[in-house]
Amino acid sequence: MTILENCVQLLANVRRQRPLVHHLTNYVTVNDCANVTLAIGGSPVMADDVEEAGEMAAIASSVVLNIGTLNTRTIGSMLAAGKTANGKGAPVVFDPVGAGATILRNTTTARILDEVKVAVLRGNISEIRSVAGLAAHTKGVDADSVDGDVDSGSLAADLARKLRCVVAITGARDAISDSKKIVFVENGHAMLADISGTGCMCSSLVGAFVGATPDQPLLGAAAAILCMGVAGEVAFQKAGSLGTGSYHAAIMDAISRMDESILLEKGQISEADY
Amino acid sequence: MTILENCVQLLANVRRQRPLVHHLTNYVTVNDCANVTLAIGGSPVMADDVEEAGEMAAIASSVVLNIGTLNTRTIGSMLAAGKTANGKGAPVVFDPVGAGATILRNTTTARILDEVKVAVLRGNISEIRSVAGLAAHTKGVDADSVDGDVDSGSLAADLARKLRCVVAITGARDAISDSKKIVFVENGHAMLADISGTGCMCSSLVGAFVGATPDQPLLGAAAAILCMGVAGEVAFQKAGSLGTGSYHAAIMDAISRMDESILLEKGQISEADY
Amino acid sequence: MTILENCVQLLANVRRQRPLVHHLTNYVTVNDCANVTLAIGGSPVMADDVEEAGEMAAIASSVVLNIGTLNTRTIGSMLAAGKTANGKGAPVVFDPVGAGATILRNTTTARILDEVKVAVLRGNISEIRSVAGLAAHTKGVDADSVDGDVDSGSLAADLARKLRCVVAITGARDAISDSKKIVFVENGHAMLADISGTGCMCSSLVGAFVGATPDQPLLGAAAAILCMGVAGEVAFQKAGSLGTGSYHAAIMDAISRMDESILLEKGQISEADY
Repeated sequence: MTILENCVQLLANVRRQRPLVHHLTNYVTVNDCANVTLAIGGSPVMADDVEEAGEMAAIASSVVLNIGTLNTRTIGSMLAAGKTANGKGAPVVFDPVGAGATILRNTTTARILDEVKVAVLRGNISEIRSVAGLAAHTKGVDADSVDGDVDSGSLAADLARKLRCVVAITGARDAISDSKKIVFVENGHAMLADISGTGCMCSSLVGAFVGATPDQPLLGAAAAILCMGVAGEVAFQKAGSLGTGSYHAAIMDAISRMDESILLEKGQISEADY
Repeated sequence: MTILENCVQLLANVRRQRPLVHHLTNYVTVNDCANVTLAIGGSPVMADDVEEAGEMAAIASSVVLNIGTLNTRTIGSMLAAGKTANGKGAPVVFDPVGAGATILRNTTTARILDEVKVAVLRGNISEIRSVAGLAAHTKGVDADSVDGDVDSGSLAADLARKLRCVVAITGARDAISDSKKIVFVENGHAMLADISGTGCMCSSLVGAFVGATPDQPLLGAAAAILCMGVAGEVAFQKAGSLGTGSYHAAIMDAISRMDESILLEKGQISEADY
Repeated sequence: MTILENCVQLLANVRRQRPLVHHLTNYVTVNDCANVTLAIGGSPVMADDVEEAGEMAAIASSVVLNIGTLNTRTIGSMLAAGKTANGKGAPVVFDPVGAGATILRNTTTARILDEVKVAVLRGNISEIRSVAGLAAHTKGVDADSVDGDVDSGSLAADLARKLRCVVAITGARDAISDSKKIVFVENGHAMLADISGTGCMCSSLVGAFVGATPDQPLLGAAAAILCMGVAGEVAFQKAGSLGTGSYHAAIMDAISRMDESILLEKGQISEADY
């Protein structure tokens, strides 16, 4: 079976298992995170009070931690949810939004990686460079083009080895690695960057895939990122010329209608040993 | 006048009176709650700091309490807004999102029902079973299909008697009761469950209807739920085949264009004594 | 160069400079604020914890303070972000959502105006009347029609003189003044009031324009408000008959596709000495 055929199978798993994906995320893009989780076939839940974050994680298939609008009230909730998930073997996805931009984001990122066993770390190149301790040029929450001229595959693999988790760097060419293999996804469209939250949505998709197939975090992350990239292309064909409001809705349409034939027709995914 | 004609009249009331509906709600679906309130003809306001929640309730026509992303910071705000509304005779709508999923949700639900006089309690079958003290299978914030095989009409009526309020259970067939009568709504579409927040939006619609006609909570709740169900059908015809992004926008379109002729053509609503 | 041609030039500046607009805003309309900032050509960031709000402001081109869902946790964050922006010369936009409705909003509005040097104050007529200390009839967060029968140009100019900032009053006819000049914008559509957050989105656009051209707050505010008004008209032509869900997306489409030819064709903007 090719890696593309594997991704198709994982999508079927998500739709069959309907994983409950618990999010501790930001209030900017949270509605899109909920709807994209439903669109791919999962069930989203968001509960961020420290009194219930861990308890909700106990019934979840996976947990997504996203620090887009990080606040001190919910750091403890993130840690509690992450640790509960760890205790029951549910994968944790971590999206270090804006890492590198402020001390609070950097220290919280370090603390989450220290106290929680993360299954998949997903970010843009500036965020991942920051997590890796390299010079980064985060501009708020968007990647800086200066950071783009790097070998993202090697960076993902080296950081995966160091952190003992899957590292996914999304950008024009996505690189996902568990340190031994690197998966590259060539799908996507530049217009995805014109919609707030496509990165967050991508992390929610990763949560749905690894929630359905917790023993395959590399392939799950890759399949999720592949779906997002293909959706970006399909949506552009449908609505790109209309503007970003229509494109936004078309992305959700495309995720909800993603299927085997579309993935097999459009998917550009490959893997290499490292 | 038939109950359907009564609902048509209540919709006209909402559009004429433009009730101010104060929400203490969750940050996942809050934008949809605001927009659906505007779409049906009301005016939404959201203010959840304890220093102003009650003061804002004092100028509102109704208050909607929704615990979708419950947090300890705003429990006091919910109680203050509810009590202020009670004091001036403005109806309070309570949506116990995810009741049954965590201790915090259960204890807060009990506390709201104990300290605030609720006019309408609206939830899915799992949430309402949980509130009624029955075994429930809440999966995060979605109803579990296991809970669907019950006589929702009797459950609504019995709980309405116990809590002395209108109880509305939404699902494939909606049941709304004030203990003496049960209203059934057969409209809606399965695709509504693919959009995050259609339950929350429904509660906001209830807030608008009972805000405009506070002395008719049973009929107001029924009319609101009828509008949501009919909108789900209209939207499916327009955009169901496109995907969930387009369907989401089409629901809002349908609510904003709801009128007498659409309700009379599509409305499937009946009442029975209990 | 006419004022309309000046606005066209400012739009080009936004697209070329891609200003980072830091928002401390409400959770109802925050997603629209982020997306409209991207649509006009800026880069949005939202960080409201007091530990990082100032630090994020230090890398921003402008700061937008919006009290739509004001809470005591973030008042200090707003002040910190505003003061940091002041220290580096980045303009601060203030949107006093719901001013006049509660004591907390009034005292916080006064405090922000006292402690932060605001470049542009933007609100509806009821909010601005409240800030000016005049009798106002705020109904939650919407303007009351009773307040509409005033000379908004003189009000804007007088308040601009008193507060030493640009004051923008948006409504059927928008008035923007720095006390010496008054700019009037006649674009817009009544349906904009049917979408939650068009006022907030307008403030975000102001943030993008003054972030790109900080030395021209009067013209920047006017150009932003012009774009919003023209977008309201373009969107109505495209989607007004469909309903508010489609209109909402069409507004975003129109902002993202705004260009010189559309502005020159539709723009109705004029200025007068005061």
